[in-house]
Formats: sequence, C-alpha cells, structure tokens
Amino acid sequence: MQIIKNASEMQKISRELKDKGKRIAVVPTMGYLHEGHLSLVRHAQELADIVIATIFVNPKQFGPNEDFDQYPRDFNRDNSLLESIGCDYIFYPDVSDIYPLSYATEINMSGVANVLEGESRPGHFNGVALVVLKLFNITKADVSIFGQKDFQQTLVIKQLVRDFNLDIQVIIYPIVREPYGLAMSSRNRYLSEVEREKSSIIFVALDEAKKAVAKGERRRKMINSVILTTLRQVPELKIDYVYTAKAENLEITDEFLPGEEIVMLIAVWMGRTRLIDNSMTKIPITLNDNNFIEGI
Amino acid sequence: MQIIKNASEMQKISRELKDKGKRIAVVPTMGYLHEGHLSLVRHAQELADIVIATIFVNPKQFGPNEDFDQYPRDFNRDNSLLESIGCDYIFYPDVSDIYPLSYATEINMSGVANVLEGESRPGHFNGVALVVLKLFNITKADVSIFGQKDFQQTLVIKQLVRDFNLDIQVIIYPIVREPYGLAMSSRNRYLSEVEREKSSIIFVALDEAKKAVAKGERRRKMINSVILTTLRQVPELKIDYVYTAKAENLEITDEFLPGEEIVMLIAVWMGRTRLIDNSMTKIPITLNDNNFIEGI
Repeated sequence: MQIIKNASEMQKISRELKDKGKRIAVVPTMGYLHEGHLSLVRHAQELADIVIATIFVNPKQFGPNEDFDQYPRDFNRDNSLLESIGCDYIFYPDVSDIYPLSYATEINMSGVANVLEGESRPGHFNGVALVVLKLFNITKADVSIFGQKDFQQTLVIKQLVRDFNLDIQVIIYPIVREPYGLAMSSRNRYLSEVEREKSSIIFVALDEAKKAVAKGERRRKMINSVILTTLRQVPELKIDYVYTAKAENLEITDEFLPGEEIVMLIAVWMGRTRLIDNSMTKIPITLNDNNFIEGI
Repeated sequence: MQIIKNASEMQKISRELKDKGKRIAVVPTMGYLHEGHLSLVRHAQELADIVIATIFVNPKQFGPNEDFDQYPRDFNRDNSLLESIGCDYIFYPDVSDIYPLSYATEINMSGVANVLEGESRPGHFNGVALVVLKLFNITKADVSIFGQKDFQQTLVIKQLVRDFNLDIQVIIYPIVREPYGLAMSSRNRYLSEVEREKSSIIFVALDEAKKAVAKGERRRKMINSVILTTLRQVPELKIDYVYTAKAENLEITDEFLPGEEIVMLIAVWMGRTRLIDNSMTKIPITLNDNNFIEGI
C-alpha cells in the first residue's frame, strides 16, 4: 500500500493506472476509520482493480461552531487498518494542498442539499460536494462508494454527478451497526458505553416504523409519530429532526403511494454528540390498493 | 464528422475513444463560427487524435438584459465550416439536455472572476465556468483550446482547472483579426462596414500602448492614458473599461516591474454592440533598471 500526500502526484499515478486499463475505485473518508469504512473498502475491492481510500478532514464542510478541530484523527491507526485489508493507496493530503491560499471556486447546491442536514448545518453540503468533486478528479476514479448512514449526502453526491456530468458510478453501501444497533460513526467515540447502549433506541425506532409501514401505515405523520414515540423512551436524547420522505429526492407528501421507496431519517443529540441514522423501506402493495387510492 | 446532440451519448463515445488510447481535444464555442474559431479547431487537430467542437449558446452566462435570444445562430453554416476543415465531432446539445428541470448545482467564483467583465456582467463567469466544466466532463477531453480574445475568460478557465483539479490542459490561442485589425467575434455581425473600420481603432490603441511600453513606459496610468487618448479619436465608441494589469492574475500596481508580463484590456460599445479586445506585452529589462527601481 502506498501513501500519497500530494494531489498532483496522486493524479499522475491514477492517470498511469488508467492508461494501463485499470478500473479505479475511490472511498472518500475523513479518517478515524471503523468497520463501516472498512466494509466500503472491501466492497470497492470487488468492484475495481485498484482501490484508493482518501483521508481528509475537510474544513469546508464544517460550520464555524462545529467540531473541525476536535474531529478525531489517528492516521497511524487508519494506515494499519487499510494496510491489513489490502487497500492499494491512501490519499492523505494536507489542507493547503486541497485549498491553497489562492483557492477561489465554490459550489452552491440547492435541491436535496437545502433540507435537514442542509438546514441544521448551513453550507455543509456545498463543502461536501466540493471536496468530493476534487477527490473524484484527483483519483480519476471510475466508481465511488459511500455509506448509506449519510443518506442525504448520498443524494447530494448523486446530484453532483448528474448536474456536472461526472463519468463516475456512485455506489451506496448499507449501514454497518454496532452490536446493539447504533450506526457506526467516528463520532461514536465521544459516547460512553452507557450512552451507546441508550442511543441504540434510534435503531429500534427506525425498526418500529418499518414494521408499521409493513403493516400498512402510509401516512407520513403517523410514521414519524411511531419514531418519535419510541425515541422519547430515552429522555437523554434531544431530537433534532425526524423526517420521512421519498427516498429518491426527499420530497414529502401526506400519504405515500404503494410501491414507493421511502426513507426515514433521524438526527438527535446525545449530550454534545450529534448522531444521525436512517432506514429505507418500500410501501407495500396490497390487494385493496385501488380502493385505498380512491379513498385518498 | 458526426453530430452528437445528447450528453450521455457524447460521453459514451468519448469513453470508448479514451479506452482505445485516443487523445481528445475540445473546442468549446457558442457557434456562429468565424476564422478565429476555425483556427482553434485547426490547432486542436495538431494537439490531439480527435477534435470535438461544441456548439452551445449557454443561457447561464447571459444576464437578464443581455442578448441571449438575439445571439446569432446558424447551425447549418457552422456544420459546413467544421466539416470542411475535418473536425471529428460536433457536440450540439439542447438547453434542456445541459440544464434539465431538476438542475440545481452552481459554481461561484471569486478571484479573477470578480473584476472587469465580472463587474460589467454579474454572474457571467460563474455561467462560463459551469458550462465549461460540464463540457470538459462530457467530452472527457485531454486538452482544450480557448481564444485569447476572451482573455479574462482564459484566466477563469485556468482557475477552474486548478481549483477543481481537472486533468485537462488549457491552451490559449492568439487573437485572429479582420483585415483592419478588429478582433474577430460573432458579435461583429451587428456592425456595419463603416463601424467595423472605425472599431479598428481598438487595435491601434493597443498597438500604441505596446510601443509606449517598448520605449520604457511602466506606469499603469500612463499606459492606460495612451490607450484612452487613441480610442477617443473615434467619438462613436463608448468606453466601458480600459485596464492594464499583470497578465497572470489581473492584479494592478502603479508601476510594473521589468520582465513582468502585462495585459491591456479594452471593452467598448459601438452603438448597441459591445466589443472586447486585449494585448499582452512584457515590460522590457533595460541597462539602468537598478537605478529605475531605486527611484520608485
């Protein structure tokens, strides 16, 4: 495994790999890797000849009062983990290499970038889109793998790819969870063991909502209400948002249609740590759907 | 020569060409081609195996009161011209293919994009950068050729390439002029024969300034003054701006340094037609430069 610090050098290596006909996969991360990230890299290995994991804590996706400085970093640990699973390259640039002093070009996204995380964290997705675009260009990747945990981010990336005509495949990999159900996240390290256990109510809430949908619930507010009721069993959790929408574009409607793919998204605070999670499900198609639709 | 209307189809063709090891050049144009454009295509043919000329009048680079609707278009003529010089592909998309209804991602540039044309035409360079990025991605070009006439635009493109880590070479081709010296432009068709002749004073003014610099003039205001005095010989011309700056980044200074590359930029109105032109020159290094610098 090679560690590349410099963007021009990484791009040169990627160009040479492409000239040899190699298919490149990129797994963009902010480091402090956990089993979720490693699953992405392993999946990337199935999809391409060469896997480049990128480790870059991107200042442009943090707000002024967020945890950029405190964000956990441990390159040696990340390095060992990636080495152990046979990753080919780590691209690990300095901030000044990605955003030199003369840097002056920003991305401004509307659409899926404007709700939820986009509201809670203004500018966040513009920063995400920008760095992902740069990482795609630097690594010249054919395919990229993102975790479903950052569901809205995956929609932002898909929009970026569509709107800028990027010739790259975007693969979304399912959420990897801790034993009690908490979605894996580098920020989980901020949590005590007790807090982790308590936070597993988030997964339970999503699961309860999924069951309700499977039993025929299609009303957005009722689905949200199942989630909220469950979350409130743990008073330490402060709810930022609970949001159920069409999975394709985060559009909301009072009542979802049979066959529609929906996503239930949650953001909560456990103490000073913000946790997000989500789950997708399909509104079932039942025998009496015609009557049901007429009754709307 | 093949005419491709659809972005995905163009990208597929380019991907196949790249897989065969072909080097691709792109010449982005808004059509209504003249000898200036054809020179770019001919130069592109020297630099690459395959040349794609793009013809797209990009609505996002026109202001609300500008001439988007009136901008001259004649695809059949463009088609014949490109065919006659052996261009390989024309990419000629509809607006709805480049900016579908769901389109929601913009570019926001500061730096070189904020002065001159950027001031006279707010948002213009954001629109240019956006469409050029998309055309680069759609054509998967290795090299791109732009005319020096739009000098500031060439700096914007270079910034785009640098800031987004695009793996594409940007070549700037010298201005092609009409017999009397007027820089070729699709907008020249708005001018009468008399107006064209009178507008050639723009070239004369740039030439006078160049001579003054060659004779030792380094003071920005004096260089501008040579240009202004010359332009004022034609009272029909309304001056929008006359600007002399470092060619690298458009930075201004009271007195340029020996060896420095400078650019003199002009924008004027002839009737309802806006004309731009520019010329680059180097501040000469003379024997008494040390004294001169001490005297500043």
